[in-house]
Amino acid sequence: MTPPHAFPPDEARGVYRAIAERRDVRGGLFRPDPVPADVLGRLLRAAHSAPSVGFMQPWDFVLVESHAVRTRVKAGFDRENERAAGNYADDRAALYRSLKLEGILEAPLNMCVTCDRRRGGPHVLGRNTAVDADLFSVCLAVQNLWLAARAEGIGVGWVSILDPADLAAVLGLPDGVVPVAYLCLGYTAEFLPEPELQLRGWRDRLPLAGLIHLDGYGCPHPAAPDLAGPGRPSG
Amino acid sequence: MTPPHAFPPDEARGVYRAIAERRDVRGGLFRPDPVPADVLGRLLRAAHSAPSVGFMQPWDFVLVESHAVRTRVKAGFDRENERAAGNYADDRAALYRSLKLEGILEAPLNMCVTCDRRRGGPHVLGRNTAVDADLFSVCLAVQNLWLAARAEGIGVGWVSILDPADLAAVLGLPDGVVPVAYLCLGYTAEFLPEPELQLRGWRDRLPLAGLIHLDGYGCPHPAAPDLAGPGRPSG
Repeated sequence: MTPPHAFPPDEARGVYRAIAERRDVRGGLFRPDPVPADVLGRLLRAAHSAPSVGFMQPWDFVLVESHAVRTRVKAGFDRENERAAGNYADDRAALYRSLKLEGILEAPLNMCVTCDRRRGGPHVLGRNTAVDADLFSVCLAVQNLWLAARAEGIGVGWVSILDPADLAAVLGLPDGVVPVAYLCLGYTAEFLPEPELQLRGWRDRLPLAGLIHLDGYGCPHPAAPDLAGPGRPSG
Repeated sequence: MTPPHAFPPDEARGVYRAIAERRDVRGGLFRPDPVPADVLGRLLRAAHSAPSVGFMQPWDFVLVESHAVRTRVKAGFDRENERAAGNYADDRAALYRSLKLEGILEAPLNMCVTCDRRRGGPHVLGRNTAVDADLFSVCLAVQNLWLAARAEGIGVGWVSILDPADLAAVLGLPDGVVPVAYLCLGYTAEFLPEPELQLRGWRDRLPLAGLIHLDGYGCPHPAAPDLAGPGRPSG
């Protein structure tokens, strides 16, 4: 029997499909066609529907179309990426350098999702103890957008190899507003069957069963193998 | 014409419905029926399918069924909530105290989603500059779970009024593992039509158009009213 409020099977399948088939899409896969305004509007409204601590809604969306601005962002990426490459040696360094980790100039649209840490004043409900809950709220908005984009056939890539202070300067963020996610968006030639870092042998998916605990960390859940399901998740 | 890789309308509708109708569910609405293992498994696999920086997968899932453990968590909430109530005065204080902000003992299941900040070693790809990207990845996993739960008819509430150090002690988290989200889960009598904080007059939804910028913060996007769509989003 279907529980009350549960979705009909086709709608539920859409939710699980978006979750399983969403990918972090990098340059090389983006197609140049612009994201139509009606589609972009749906993505932004999806993000704005996210939960937020104390209903703070601390996000802003800085859309980046300007080639000049993107070129500055890309220069920042190149600096940070070169620095990061120095963390690895030999085969690992070669593999790192062969990975495409952004699509800043290729994607038809870039977007920085920011967090206004002062919005709502000094006493946001629920942020008394958990002061980073505002940043977390912005991440929930990003995931809404990412999943909605998958349903639209639009790929999203989160570029984390950027210096937040540099990015804030390029985008003119005022004091108290910090960048959380820098995203590249566009229709994509392909959604890979698995994360690229797994396909390329950088890192494997962890077995879920080992990550499920009961009533305390390190206490194995007796049902963990069943909960983890047959094999790995589909994406 | 439907773009390649876009979902068929019924599946896309499921994604947008989950996003619009997801709510932060508090005590008083949870029904006592347990979450069946097959459903819980789907939720955990949805979370584990989230993107993560450098494919780090820094999350663990501590399911909390024990009444004794929950009672300790609830005591921590009560302390923090009392402290937070002191931030408000007069009508606002009365309203704050009337809000139900957790369902720790009523919900049939509690779950702490943690972040192992040392997983993957000292040089996780993409975490060189953005050191909090691991915490953000855990949030993306939480939102996957939250949306999948909505499709299943299961309500989820994120309790942020907890002291992370206290919670880590109660759940026996080792050094380097931090709590990110403490969730209450269960079938729910109702998904409210709007966030409770809005319905109760605590805080209104912000107009989306004012949060959309073009090429730099504070530069209004000429299409912002169109992108924001007619009226507010549906949830």
